[in-house]
Amino acid sequence: MTTVRVDITVSLDGFVAGPNQTLEHPLGENGERLHEWAFAAESWRERHGLSGGEANVDSDVLRASQDATGAVVMGRRMFSGGEGPWADDPNANGWWGDDPPFHVPVFVVTQHARDTVTMQGGTSFAFVTDGVGRAIAQAREDAGEKDVLVAGGASVVQQALRAGLLDELQLHVVPLLLGGGVRLFGPLGPVVDLEVTRVIESPAVAHLRYRVQRGQVTSSG
Amino acid sequence: MTTVRVDITVSLDGFVAGPNQTLEHPLGENGERLHEWAFAAESWRERHGLSGGEANVDSDVLRASQDATGAVVMGRRMFSGGEGPWADDPNANGWWGDDPPFHVPVFVVTQHARDTVTMQGGTSFAFVTDGVGRAIAQAREDAGEKDVLVAGGASVVQQALRAGLLDELQLHVVPLLLGGGVRLFGPLGPVVDLEVTRVIESPAVAHLRYRVQRGQVTSSG
Repeated sequence: MTTVRVDITVSLDGFVAGPNQTLEHPLGENGERLHEWAFAAESWRERHGLSGGEANVDSDVLRASQDATGAVVMGRRMFSGGEGPWADDPNANGWWGDDPPFHVPVFVVTQHARDTVTMQGGTSFAFVTDGVGRAIAQAREDAGEKDVLVAGGASVVQQALRAGLLDELQLHVVPLLLGGGVRLFGPLGPVVDLEVTRVIESPAVAHLRYRVQRGQVTSSG
Repeated sequence: MTTVRVDITVSLDGFVAGPNQTLEHPLGENGERLHEWAFAAESWRERHGLSGGEANVDSDVLRASQDATGAVVMGRRMFSGGEGPWADDPNANGWWGDDPPFHVPVFVVTQHARDTVTMQGGTSFAFVTDGVGRAIAQAREDAGEKDVLVAGGASVVQQALRAGLLDELQLHVVPLLLGGGVRLFGPLGPVVDLEVTRVIESPAVAHLRYRVQRGQVTSSG
């Protein structure tokens, strides 16, 4: 049974990127600091073809998430990298290099129809022009028994939440107040009830995992 | 050595109150749900002169916080209760009843000068018209060796953060996405670095405690 899961790193004040995103700093000011815990992890480095790194609890959490993932859904900007002029180049292959770190099919929610691109190492990028729901449905088909990972950005996560398409949220909460930038969470329709399924802490990050509760739409008041 | 500590309950999407606050619902739509974990706790009930409740880890966390607190700082609306017409009555004694649950001196940050009010059970309300910094300084004098608790609302917490007046943050993160309302965190000057000092979980809430790092102002980029 495929689980549709958001797995995303966020500052304690709720930002997935810092303020003033530019071509040089697609994650905004200090946004890279959100991902230092991952950059340091052995499992992240392996995934990116690098040696070394720390074999710690953060690395284990990341490895488990990677191993459970059968397909990925992401937004156009996460695919193409920020807000630079090449972000709108419909032929650009993103900022992920020739051997992207996904190693599974990736479904990009975009306005620009184009053919699927097959990269090295098992990653492909398919482009879905009829919304996040359709992207998740296609990803389900490719994921087999594994999870569909909704990787971001915030806009895709919010659309999936509002549409009731998520089963699980895993937030990696970094002990940092960015004070501005791109917020993970925005307006919803009804309140969404969650169930805590796991909390793992390290000095670098708190890994909070939740299951989205179905059929518990709460009335106002 | 007095610690100045924020101790506040927040939804996973960062709200301390729901949308559409009214006199009937000063915590906004579904805002009361943020505090169900506390209402159920034995220590909270004791504090409010009630019997019963659960003697669980949430109750222990709350009791430890209460026992460590020597004085409280809060904003005018937290004192007077929401946005109703009586919220602006400069003579109203708040919505906390004759025997408020603080049992220590409380310093209310307000525009309205008035004399200190002494309530039953050890609570007094003093009104500080020259800002949150002065309120915290006065609270320090009364706290002795115990902590100053900055109880909210969000505006007072944000002012104290921006002024660099906080030593510790404890967030009680409730597994709920409110989707709107009053956000705990807003714009900051420089990024604020935190150190995780404790994570305690229960089915109802994740208690995340952080120490604010001093002298680590991070440059942009």
